[in-house]
Amino acid sequence: MVSFPYHDRGVVDTSASPYTRLKPVPIHAVRLRDGFWKPRLDANMRAGMPELYRLLEEHGVVDNFRRVYGAKDVPRRGYLFTDSDLYKWIEAAAFVLQSQDDPEIRQRMDEAIDAIIPAQREDGYLNTYYVDERYDQRYTRLDTDHELYCAGHLFQAAIAHHRATGETKLLDCALRFADHLCQVIPNIPGAFSGHPEIEMALVELYRETGRARYLDLARHLLNAKGFAELQKIEGHAVRALYFCCGGADYYAETGEPAFRASLERQWENLTRTKMYITGGAGGRHQGESLGKDYELPNARAYAETCAAVGNIFWNWRMLMLDGEARFADVLERTLYNGFLAGVSLDGTRYFYVNPLSYDGEGEGDPWYPWARRGPYERQPWYDCTCCPPNVARMLASLPGYFYSTSQDGLWVHLYDNNDLDWRLIDGTRLQVSQLTRYPWDGDITLTVTPAVPTEFTLHLRIPEWADHASVTINGRSTDVPAAAGQYLALRREWQPGDQVHLSLGMAPAVMVSHPRVAENRCSVALQRGPVVYCLEAHDNPGFSVLDAQLDPTGEITSEYRGDLLGGVTILTARGVVPTRPGTALYRRWQAEPEPTRPVTLTAIPYYAWNNRGPRAMTVWIREWRP
Amino acid sequence: MVSFPYHDRGVVDTSASPYTRLKPVPIHAVRLRDGFWKPRLDANMRAGMPELYRLLEEHGVVDNFRRVYGAKDVPRRGYLFTDSDLYKWIEAAAFVLQSQDDPEIRQRMDEAIDAIIPAQREDGYLNTYYVDERYDQRYTRLDTDHELYCAGHLFQAAIAHHRATGETKLLDCALRFADHLCQVIPNIPGAFSGHPEIEMALVELYRETGRARYLDLARHLLNAKGFAELQKIEGHAVRALYFCCGGADYYAETGEPAFRASLERQWENLTRTKMYITGGAGGRHQGESLGKDYELPNARAYAETCAAVGNIFWNWRMLMLDGEARFADVLERTLYNGFLAGVSLDGTRYFYVNPLSYDGEGEGDPWYPWARRGPYERQPWYDCTCCPPNVARMLASLPGYFYSTSQDGLWVHLYDNNDLDWRLIDGTRLQVSQLTRYPWDGDITLTVTPAVPTEFTLHLRIPEWADHASVTINGRSTDVPAAAGQYLALRREWQPGDQVHLSLGMAPAVMVSHPRVAENRCSVALQRGPVVYCLEAHDNPGFSVLDAQLDPTGEITSEYRGDLLGGVTILTARGVVPTRPGTALYRRWQAEPEPTRPVTLTAIPYYAWNNRGPRAMTVWIREWRP
Repeated sequence: MVSFPYHDRGVVDTSASPYTRLKPVPIHAVRLRDGFWKPRLDANMRAGMPELYRLLEEHGVVDNFRRVYGAKDVPRRGYLFTDSDLYKWIEAAAFVLQSQDDPEIRQRMDEAIDAIIPAQREDGYLNTYYVDERYDQRYTRLDTDHELYCAGHLFQAAIAHHRATGETKLLDCALRFADHLCQVIPNIPGAFSGHPEIEMALVELYRETGRARYLDLARHLLNAKGFAELQKIEGHAVRALYFCCGGADYYAETGEPAFRASLERQWENLTRTKMYITGGAGGRHQGESLGKDYELPNARAYAETCAAVGNIFWNWRMLMLDGEARFADVLERTLYNGFLAGVSLDGTRYFYVNPLSYDGEGEGDPWYPWARRGPYERQPWYDCTCCPPNVARMLASLPGYFYSTSQDGLWVHLYDNNDLDWRLIDGTRLQVSQLTRYPWDGDITLTVTPAVPTEFTLHLRIPEWADHASVTINGRSTDVPAAAGQYLALRREWQPGDQVHLSLGMAPAVMVSHPRVAENRCSVALQRGPVVYCLEAHDNPGFSVLDAQLDPTGEITSEYRGDLLGGVTILTARGVVPTRPGTALYRRWQAEPEPTRPVTLTAIPYYAWNNRGPRAMTVWIREWRP
Repeated sequence: MVSFPYHDRGVVDTSASPYTRLKPVPIHAVRLRDGFWKPRLDANMRAGMPELYRLLEEHGVVDNFRRVYGAKDVPRRGYLFTDSDLYKWIEAAAFVLQSQDDPEIRQRMDEAIDAIIPAQREDGYLNTYYVDERYDQRYTRLDTDHELYCAGHLFQAAIAHHRATGETKLLDCALRFADHLCQVIPNIPGAFSGHPEIEMALVELYRETGRARYLDLARHLLNAKGFAELQKIEGHAVRALYFCCGGADYYAETGEPAFRASLERQWENLTRTKMYITGGAGGRHQGESLGKDYELPNARAYAETCAAVGNIFWNWRMLMLDGEARFADVLERTLYNGFLAGVSLDGTRYFYVNPLSYDGEGEGDPWYPWARRGPYERQPWYDCTCCPPNVARMLASLPGYFYSTSQDGLWVHLYDNNDLDWRLIDGTRLQVSQLTRYPWDGDITLTVTPAVPTEFTLHLRIPEWADHASVTINGRSTDVPAAAGQYLALRREWQPGDQVHLSLGMAPAVMVSHPRVAENRCSVALQRGPVVYCLEAHDNPGFSVLDAQLDPTGEITSEYRGDLLGGVTILTARGVVPTRPGTALYRRWQAEPEPTRPVTLTAIPYYAWNNRGPRAMTVWIREWRP
């Protein structure tokens, strides 16, 4: 087993995984420059994460550890899975520190780790819920609770911490717990993790340490729920997606064909019947679940932010296997839309549920006053705190998702201003810099600088949405056709300073969905590049966006507005609204169309909605059929 | 206060209610002859109710009473509201006995009553959940549980039993409990009923006894949740609808204008934004609730059978106020569709949830195995048993919903073969018989036989759906225009044997819904007379009904099929299905229509679906727009 030194390991370290073609580029090798993502990562690091840590302290999440060993005499607070929230925060901090030093983040991370470690028991067990009078209940509710889920998040935090600092204090703690679990879990008949997460963490722990027992335990837990036999992706969205991450990680190490087949079945089922156009997943509030095929309501979308993170995680792992662009397409779709909507522009408030339509109203329930909802706005804190630190770790690790290497060269997955300083697999140092206004503009200039002239393949991702794509090298066009939904393989002897210019067509696209998606019939959505749009009431005065109808044959214009919502390209389209909206709920069909008046529809990126107060919004717009 | 003798009181006794124009006709005065409803009432009485009683015994619901006073040494079983299930069964039995003697039903009803009464405490309190170690908790969870709800069902059962038999044993028991509540509840700050029901029961108890304190307690409970201030109908569907029943009953006695205004606001909100075309209500599984305005998903409809019963109850009470036909229209819509779908054709299996679309599939959840659902079929029993006995009491009492009287004459609300033997308010004996094939045919012949020639008004309901209506008296047309959605007032001196022939246009209607109902856009539903139709896979081989598109400009033909589903009129329409259904979930909009092939669509009444095994079904059909 060959693996990089600790500081050169990627977010997911497939460097020695036999069944992955793509190998990781570590976070530190990619320095974002000012562009689309850097302000968001900065807001996460400077505003979101410090505030989140403060709230974790305020809500007793850190004290839940301190009380175990008597450092605080307070009752335990919060859900039984609060440990995982702190672990995720530490993992996010470690990803930040893999990019750059930040004394404040570093200090809080150390504080948190120092609060955690003494809570570990002699036998390696570590969980703040199953202590005192509940200690005897450990391992008795694996099927329904989050005991192993918390362990998994500890392992991931410890791995990220080790990769950031080279320190082993949290990793040693994690390994003691993992070793303990390797002894205990296989002896509990039927044991599985009620909320998957530990499966992918165990495989990564195997990658980090080379200890096969962790891979064995991952297999044990995957098989306990029949991963290889699953025909569809069903049930709780985050659990199902995390489980697929574990299955993909396991396949990357073992190549077991039944796992690959199951991954394909579930991926097809998700992307053909259960995924929002935003990449969000989870059509049903009940059980936070995926629902049935084509069950994709808009106002009642669940589309938990954590599910978007899970969808990115899973597609990244699938992409690593063979470098198939379809996985990168879903990853990018989710990243710019379903995921990014989960956090406010200032980086401090979070959506748990991400609807694709909103009527601007709250709602009441005289019988369950606690069910009074709305207005629907992002919150700085949820008692079930899973989403905010998931946003934090996803953003902090994002530089690690831009590039990969393979035996034949370099892969470019994401586009934004950044400088890569890394090496080809043969060890040749390679620098690449990107210059672009992506995602507002499809022109990207990549300057490729190997240390010495070197023959290798530059795999450039041509997104599925690119209505045309062309590429020049040092100003001369290439004869390789640049087809959408593929990686364009440019093989040549690259000279230091070679310039590749990629032009991706970003004409606004009018999208429709499969007619089985009941709510989207006769409706269209706007997309430009990777960005999915919505109509929000703020930009559309004088009518309700829920009544608006868009003429798909009309011109749709784009305009960059630097002053709006942190800088966005808006779209304007031709549409109509009814002049006399009816009030009858049911009436006889009439051949005559309803009378309408023309309006201009103004669309903003979906991710930016609800940053100016909660007002009506819709992604899917009725199609105008005159 | 004037009231009829016990055996002449209606289902809801508005005979002395000052703010009702319409006065009840008791169940016994209406004898159904073979037609649409009689076989269903017979199945309910002969098959459904005996089996349900057996299941109530089997699941310990009756023993829950016996154990209180030591007649059975068994633990209490079931939800905290099981008492109400037995009360509802008794009420149903009493309605049956108001129609006809039935020794078997009578014996079981007496058995049940004899099991209940000894469980009453000295102070009048009666509830099998708040006993033993929970006795001290009585009245501590009024806001969230069903303590007063159970009391309300006891009162209703007792009233129906008294009206059936003249016996007072259960009524005395109810009055002792009610008197106790009148003392206790007003002294509990903020007390209200977490699940409404008792409010309407208390008003009826006031009507039964003339004791104002029951009306006062009803007012107290209605005001505790601000009935008069409610702006919308929101929250748990059954609770909200039962609460409106209580509000309407209270208004009928007091005429308080703020209650009438609240009833109007809630009724408008329900019927314009929250009611299925079937009359079902409850668009959200979460909280079994009504959801937001226009939140009416089809496959995920909740539309609990109890909510349909509640909608019938409420509209009946509204109808009594002034005789406005809009209330009868909603009542009939709900009765033939949303309610009737709740029970199988053989009368022994029940839906709790009534979807308007079904894909024929079950579903799984690897993380919550208990959430594995389907195939979706009617069940003989639910642990939450509210719906089956609600079906039983609704069917058993149905003869009481056919007619009313008013100062000026007789009102005919429902059409089916039956003989009325009752009297006008002035005491003149009046017999009416209906001869019809309704709802399959719109021709109804009414033979009107007053004991002596008498001038009065015959108010004939002209349903909202009647595309034309005409009436003749003794073969001669009348000059009164018969407008849809009104009661046609025929005033004359009626002679014994006068024949009225009413002809209601029943051309199949293609219906659409308000465009804010997201799932129904560009879709149509078929309705003929009061019956809403659906496509079920059984009748549509060779394609999926979920892919079918209906041409609303094509002819729709009707055919009565006596051999099918107990005898139904089926509809056939021209439609198409896609020749190459796409698999992509999202794609670019195209101007060209998808290629299709013509098919014949066969629709059956919605109420009859899922009586031949659970297969795909849809009420709303995509509109074909070539």
